Amino acid sequence: MSRIVLDAIGGDHAPKEAIAGVAMALQNGFLQADEVVLTGPEQQVREAVKAAGLPSEIEIFDAPDLLSPSDSPTDAMRKKPRNSIAVGMQLVKEGKAGAFVSAGSTGTVVAAATLGLRYLEGIRRAAIGVIIEGEKHPFIVLDVGANPTPKAHHLAQYALMGSAYYSCQFQNDAPLVGLLNIGSEERKGNTLVRDARGMMQNMPINFHGNVEGSEVYSGDCHVIVTDGFSGNVLLKVSEGLAEYLLRMTCGEMMKAGIAAEQIKAVQKAVMPRVDFSEYGGALLLGVEGYVTICHGRSMAPAFANALRFAHRALAGKVNEHIVEAAKSLNLTGSSGNGSGEEVSNEETR
Amino acid sequence: MSRIVLDAIGGDHAPKEAIAGVAMALQNGFLQADEVVLTGPEQQVREAVKAAGLPSEIEIFDAPDLLSPSDSPTDAMRKKPRNSIAVGMQLVKEGKAGAFVSAGSTGTVVAAATLGLRYLEGIRRAAIGVIIEGEKHPFIVLDVGANPTPKAHHLAQYALMGSAYYSCQFQNDAPLVGLLNIGSEERKGNTLVRDARGMMQNMPINFHGNVEGSEVYSGDCHVIVTDGFSGNVLLKVSEGLAEYLLRMTCGEMMKAGIAAEQIKAVQKAVMPRVDFSEYGGALLLGVEGYVTICHGRSMAPAFANALRFAHRALAGKVNEHIVEAAKSLNLTGSSGNGSGEEVSNEETR
Repeated sequence: MSRIVLDAIGGDHAPKEAIAGVAMALQNGFLQADEVVLTGPEQQVREAVKAAGLPSEIEIFDAPDLLSPSDSPTDAMRKKPRNSIAVGMQLVKEGKAGAFVSAGSTGTVVAAATLGLRYLEGIRRAAIGVIIEGEKHPFIVLDVGANPTPKAHHLAQYALMGSAYYSCQFQNDAPLVGLLNIGSEERKGNTLVRDARGMMQNMPINFHGNVEGSEVYSGDCHVIVTDGFSGNVLLKVSEGLAEYLLRMTCGEMMKAGIAAEQIKAVQKAVMPRVDFSEYGGALLLGVEGYVTICHGRSMAPAFANALRFAHRALAGKVNEHIVEAAKSLNLTGSSGNGSGEEVSNEETR
Repeated sequence: MSRIVLDAIGGDHAPKEAIAGVAMALQNGFLQADEVVLTGPEQQVREAVKAAGLPSEIEIFDAPDLLSPSDSPTDAMRKKPRNSIAVGMQLVKEGKAGAFVSAGSTGTVVAAATLGLRYLEGIRRAAIGVIIEGEKHPFIVLDVGANPTPKAHHLAQYALMGSAYYSCQFQNDAPLVGLLNIGSEERKGNTLVRDARGMMQNMPINFHGNVEGSEVYSGDCHVIVTDGFSGNVLLKVSEGLAEYLLRMTCGEMMKAGIAAEQIKAVQKAVMPRVDFSEYGGALLLGVEGYVTICHGRSMAPAFANALRFAHRALAGKVNEHIVEAAKSLNLTGSSGNGSGEEVSNEETR
């Protein structure tokens, strides 16, 4: 099933920008009108569809339970079972859609996915992978926030998933995988990274070893593996710093008397490279289906990119590549502690 | 004792740049010639002093054991007891100097300090605090790498030390203290930050609550508290990203046909704000004496800034302020688990 279900009510600017994003995606030929379905409060979404001039045949699955920012993921799932995220995930679970796209609460999307969808064979924990434009080439960081307290064998699985994802996305047979650490030496860091390093050294991946924060953007690694806490810090600090630097630099360009159109040209060239939604979204790796998480503040172009991104993930069959890689590794057997684990991610508590 | 002992052999460009830094500091009036002493292999340092045209009266304490990058902190301290870091720390311990400045291995400096110097009264773990130029005001991040596996009450002590340090450094009576987390909601993150948050809420500090990575550079917090792993990721990712962005922006300015002198003007204005050694160094908070850690790649200006920084820390009596704040808190009693702890930081293992 190649349909994509979009959470029409998720995000700071939904439903308007979400629906405008669909219109933009259709205009740009990212996907066809019958490839997208919507979830959200039916009447509200229908009106937004009409206002945006979208074809009225677009299917809407009613999700009358509105989430508020104060709802914890647990509350969202227990007390508001017919929220747009739960309804969308259910469509994926039932095979009525192949992918789900949402700019709603990341925690709730992760909770709904890990509760509702099965883990891929050989995988025990999901991770959010985000693609970032680096100096030499794009790179993937995972996990950027699905699970702030993973175990070492989860990091090892992230390495495998990230490697398969990168191979698939960028036609690179042997992406270089680095483990984020606070020094390049083997003994550095905490128990988690030292244990994960030992496991990753024995895996069928192109393992680089430790990567320091300073090398992330300009170094050689294509895949950066880390826990969901540090990964989230990496991603969000990068977003905040990049925006701040760009503002500062533009201000200084004005002070230096540089012409407005030249400043605009520089901005236009630099901004997409530090726009962390340029690739359209972050993929929740490790579960069946293709769950794409967008920035809460996404506007129409970000939603359109996310739809294209989900469409490509579906077409590229990333999950099949992950399952294949996990098979060759037989991770469950070799790690020796992969069975009998609780299924929920920490984030969902 | 207001003398500063400089590790003349520590860093990628020592002793030449370290000694040139002393010369620069003297020329700029940052300190007097009798306020600085040097450690390192005596003959080599004496020659560098001579070559730089420094007064020959500058005292040199011989440290014949040369460290190599492959020496672990433990090896450095056990097998090479007369290395420049150990000799320098000993001078502080004996009261022959009040501060120690080194661009050598951070791990070895932390190990030497926590083994050789006493913790300040009421403090049980040291943290590296670094001052960064933010959009609204400077801010301190701690810990950026002394201890990758702190406990919650250590983070609470970091909050206290950071607050006292900031007050002292920037004449701010109630600096806003934030706890780095992966979301602003109370339940977010891992056990460490949730427990630390509970403690920090009851402390005599101006506590903001959780801070997300995206708010670090442009938000309102003056003190950002985090574990040494995440703090190190924050600092090093920032360094790498800022350098990459500046390179990229300058490249785009050239492509946009902007004049070379205008590009230089922009660079000159932006660079100091993203030069993380601008303030001269990072201070190891929590131990007696003022231990200043410089970037390994420090050049003469960075060494000069570090000497000025150490001189000011000494004059400002930061440690007395920390001890005073710790007294008012009676942290040892209130945390209930402050006694009987191992003394070494994780980093030293």
